[in-house]
Amino acid sequence: MTEVIVPDIVISRLPWYLQTLNQMAKEGLHTVSSKTLSKRLGTTAAQIRKDLSYFGGFGKQGTGYSIYYLIEQLQKILNLDQVWQVAVVGAGDLGRALTHYQGFAIRGIEIVMLFDIDPKLVGTQVGSVVVRHVDSMEAEIRDKGIKIAILTVPAQVAQITADRLVDAGIEAILNYAPITLILPASVHVQHIDPVLHLQRMMYYLGEE
Amino acid sequence: MTEVIVPDIVISRLPWYLQTLNQMAKEGLHTVSSKTLSKRLGTTAAQIRKDLSYFGGFGKQGTGYSIYYLIEQLQKILNLDQVWQVAVVGAGDLGRALTHYQGFAIRGIEIVMLFDIDPKLVGTQVGSVVVRHVDSMEAEIRDKGIKIAILTVPAQVAQITADRLVDAGIEAILNYAPITLILPASVHVQHIDPVLHLQRMMYYLGEE
Repeated sequence: MTEVIVPDIVISRLPWYLQTLNQMAKEGLHTVSSKTLSKRLGTTAAQIRKDLSYFGGFGKQGTGYSIYYLIEQLQKILNLDQVWQVAVVGAGDLGRALTHYQGFAIRGIEIVMLFDIDPKLVGTQVGSVVVRHVDSMEAEIRDKGIKIAILTVPAQVAQITADRLVDAGIEAILNYAPITLILPASVHVQHIDPVLHLQRMMYYLGEE
Repeated sequence: MTEVIVPDIVISRLPWYLQTLNQMAKEGLHTVSSKTLSKRLGTTAAQIRKDLSYFGGFGKQGTGYSIYYLIEQLQKILNLDQVWQVAVVGAGDLGRALTHYQGFAIRGIEIVMLFDIDPKLVGTQVGSVVVRHVDSMEAEIRDKGIKIAILTVPAQVAQITADRLVDAGIEAILNYAPITLILPASVHVQHIDPVLHLQRMMYYLGEE
């Protein structure tokens, strides 16, 4: 059996669909047409139908999608029917804010470790975790079998820290450091940099 | 004269090119081929050449791009040859971490206001700004002519707060609240949600 490889750009949109569907479910809605969903998302109905067709479609002609069924299916596709344990590296303002963030637990993400090199921070409590020294990072990540890390260290040490995480068995890194990491192709990297998002919008603001 | 409209997906990649070129300049490099640049970015040389061709190209056949020249041109295109003043709304952990963030000032972004509704936070100092009450938000934003806001309020009040920002003249919102905002098409919105980025990677982690 040959398996269809779903383009990454399609995968990138699924969490966004899921979030909006969850929002609609909260509003008490039960079904939604691809047209209504597309308006909420600022995309096209054709795009949504095409994206979902990779996984079998889920909609009936004329009646639209069952919101609960679609949420359930998207959660399965994205492997969200389990809790994912995550290590945060860097206990500065951002690392601590992320560790405190209430939005993780309700969406199946558990921050189980927080590392830093600063002796003033090591041993302090942040939310439900205690900051540990980066010296023990590899051993603890390997020991717990953690696969996902959030990187909030300064730019100068981001690459070397990411290399250490990969050595420790980390397979996915959410990188907040403002540099492009160079890592093996097998490691999944997502980059969050508010400056890049702001700059993208500044292009349009300057047009006036 | 008809102006070519540059696709938004192209614009979205320019800040990322710029960041990597700045990184290369720091490493002491002076020129770069589209091939070398593409390897650093994990994209293709053809993509980079095509993206830059919208703005005239900037490269000489055989010699590659002058890094400094390309940085200068990208900064002009993205309107980064000025300081942009930004208001942060929501002085929780994340809002405070962003207001403290050192990476803004060095890239031409100045956080000039921070608003919250919590009387315990109003009046406190965060970095170089004092938290102000949201009651005065519209007046102060209008008064200063601020066009860009970062939204870090809870999900339940994100839509209403965004509506107020738009009324006050805000034209671009970087939204950290985990909801899809419904706003006039003329308002630019970028959404940062670490959960969406993590979920996108979980798809691949579950494949093993």
